[in-house]
Amino acid sequence: MRPIYLDNNATTRVDAEVFQGMLPFFIDQFGNASSMHDIGAAAGKAIKTARRKLQALIGAKFDHEITFTSGGTESDNAAILSGLEVNPERTEIVTSPVEHPAVRTLCAHLEKTRCVKVHRIPVDHYGRLDFDAYRAALTHRVAIVSIMWANNETGTIFPVAKLAEMAKEVGALFHTDAVQAVGKLPIDLKSTAIDMLSLSGHKLHGPKGVGALYIRRGVPFHALIKGGRQERDRRAGTENTPGIVGLGKAAELALQYMDKENKRVKSLRDRLEKGLLERIPKSFVTGDPLARLPNTTNVAFDRVDGEAIQFLLNRHGIACSSGSACTSGSLVRSHVLRAMNIPHTAALGAVRFSFSRYNLEEEVDRVLEVTPEIVKKLRDSFPISAG
Amino acid sequence: MRPIYLDNNATTRVDAEVFQGMLPFFIDQFGNASSMHDIGAAAGKAIKTARRKLQALIGAKFDHEITFTSGGTESDNAAILSGLEVNPERTEIVTSPVEHPAVRTLCAHLEKTRCVKVHRIPVDHYGRLDFDAYRAALTHRVAIVSIMWANNETGTIFPVAKLAEMAKEVGALFHTDAVQAVGKLPIDLKSTAIDMLSLSGHKLHGPKGVGALYIRRGVPFHALIKGGRQERDRRAGTENTPGIVGLGKAAELALQYMDKENKRVKSLRDRLEKGLLERIPKSFVTGDPLARLPNTTNVAFDRVDGEAIQFLLNRHGIACSSGSACTSGSLVRSHVLRAMNIPHTAALGAVRFSFSRYNLEEEVDRVLEVTPEIVKKLRDSFPISAG
Repeated sequence: MRPIYLDNNATTRVDAEVFQGMLPFFIDQFGNASSMHDIGAAAGKAIKTARRKLQALIGAKFDHEITFTSGGTESDNAAILSGLEVNPERTEIVTSPVEHPAVRTLCAHLEKTRCVKVHRIPVDHYGRLDFDAYRAALTHRVAIVSIMWANNETGTIFPVAKLAEMAKEVGALFHTDAVQAVGKLPIDLKSTAIDMLSLSGHKLHGPKGVGALYIRRGVPFHALIKGGRQERDRRAGTENTPGIVGLGKAAELALQYMDKENKRVKSLRDRLEKGLLERIPKSFVTGDPLARLPNTTNVAFDRVDGEAIQFLLNRHGIACSSGSACTSGSLVRSHVLRAMNIPHTAALGAVRFSFSRYNLEEEVDRVLEVTPEIVKKLRDSFPISAG
Repeated sequence: MRPIYLDNNATTRVDAEVFQGMLPFFIDQFGNASSMHDIGAAAGKAIKTARRKLQALIGAKFDHEITFTSGGTESDNAAILSGLEVNPERTEIVTSPVEHPAVRTLCAHLEKTRCVKVHRIPVDHYGRLDFDAYRAALTHRVAIVSIMWANNETGTIFPVAKLAEMAKEVGALFHTDAVQAVGKLPIDLKSTAIDMLSLSGHKLHGPKGVGALYIRRGVPFHALIKGGRQERDRRAGTENTPGIVGLGKAAELALQYMDKENKRVKSLRDRLEKGLLERIPKSFVTGDPLARLPNTTNVAFDRVDGEAIQFLLNRHGIACSSGSACTSGSLVRSHVLRAMNIPHTAALGAVRFSFSRYNLEEEVDRVLEVTPEIVKKLRDSFPISAG
């Protein structure tokens, strides 16, 4: 049986068209985009086209607002470090406790090693940001705000356009990690006050090892990776032409499929969610019911280990991700669910199913067939008592 | 006519076998190497194999001494910044004036923005490091030495094993940008005192967008890009599986071809060099005649613009690189030749031809056929007077 892949927030299959688009740039048109000869020029032209395609997907006003990087993590690091460097008189960062490790780990590091104060704005049970706390943290001491567009574990969408406007009022830069949002939600950056946005190729059926950082025209920026003069001095290093071309093609397809496919994906997600809740007692969905990515569901199950569910689903050829990491026998929940302070016993397991446009209805049916049995078996065999 | 590509120090064609090796990881085995399910595990296994292949090529003692990055520039940045961070009581860097921009630009930036003193050890006419000046700069104030293994423009090889031993004597870390050396020269790191080494996939018929940093076991290291726990906390971000697999395969092939192909490549290079010097008056080869990469020749021509030669060679379908950059009419030579203080008139043009194992004898003959005419025509039409 073909494996069922429901872990698309972790990574996605490269689209066949994307791959076809990348193909010529490995062997035939392999030139260095910065070279002066024809073989190099072909690569340079392809990169230009890719930049415009990505510009269209995120609604950037200018194509040169896009800097290609090696991925979402590098983009996040570059944005936040630059935000601090260009505002040396400001020493505070505002962020959330549910950010991706690329933001969380960096902020914790800056807090520990530099005189940087990090405000982590709490979220509620649905993962929604506390606006009052956010407003209170915004002062003229804040160099940069970094709040994700959509959460990778629960799919909760943050009102980044509004948050960016509020940040503007105190002159802080606003960065958003939109790795999970780009390609899944319509984005029109030129109508917002967002200064910087991170995205990743491999989350939208593009290749791994490539991403981008949107930097609004006029926003000062210091490069994280220094060297050659590629990317208008914003990211040194030989351009990854096949990767960039792939990301461009992936952006083009994402825009093309946006309406139709996202609706279909959402209906699959809803079907799975509804089916699981009906079939499995003491289960519930985490995240914001009103503002959630169309492709993501994070289902929590009382008194069962999420990793064990994931492990057994894998044996049935179903790939998903567990919202909790089990450390040396004790159940340690994810930082996202912990920040959401979800009402729970000590033992609550969560499983994230994340869809893509490749998923099919029969795959949902298969998951609905096996998951209830797995949860029942685990609850019967390894009873976990309330802590 | 098929273009003649003699710009392999800028970038190389991906080997067909490398590409075949990468292929499955775009569409079939596209999983996230950090995922817990089978689709992820396949990627994780492939990365492990690639790491071992690269280990073999550079003679590292342990495979975990290799950290995959997005390329040579990132590796250089990570090494130098870490070297300073882990030795906060030391505030000096020793480097050369002929380093790649990845090292040069970063060092200049650190000098300007932090209390870092940068010693740039001079080189002689052949591009050879001044050992006395090097010895004099080595004190207990030096955090890290960064000297390239081989120069990208002239091919001059630096005695990095010896330089590393000298750095050890004062307790400084030794890093080398070996982007141009790996795959072209036999390397056995375990027999040296080198602490860190940068390399890049696309310089050895691997893909762009991937590279590695060797970090000797026991050498303290702080990650440049922070986030997830990939690469043993040394480089965050989803692993670029196809890129890493490609780099591994490229390393395997480079090792396999090392003896035989490098000899053939050297004979082609020598044939071109000899032919050009015989046919073109007032031309000479730059770089160290005794210690030079087998694939590189940088030929200087008196009273002619190197860029113009390159431009006209390109019209004949020959891709190479000019050693000088012409800025607004005035001839500005490369930082490498300038540092070598080559005896010259104000007008000296240089062209770099860099070979790979794909080059053929008839390509050399074609270059020998057209280049003398081009130089003569340029000298006759645009006489450049000695400044």
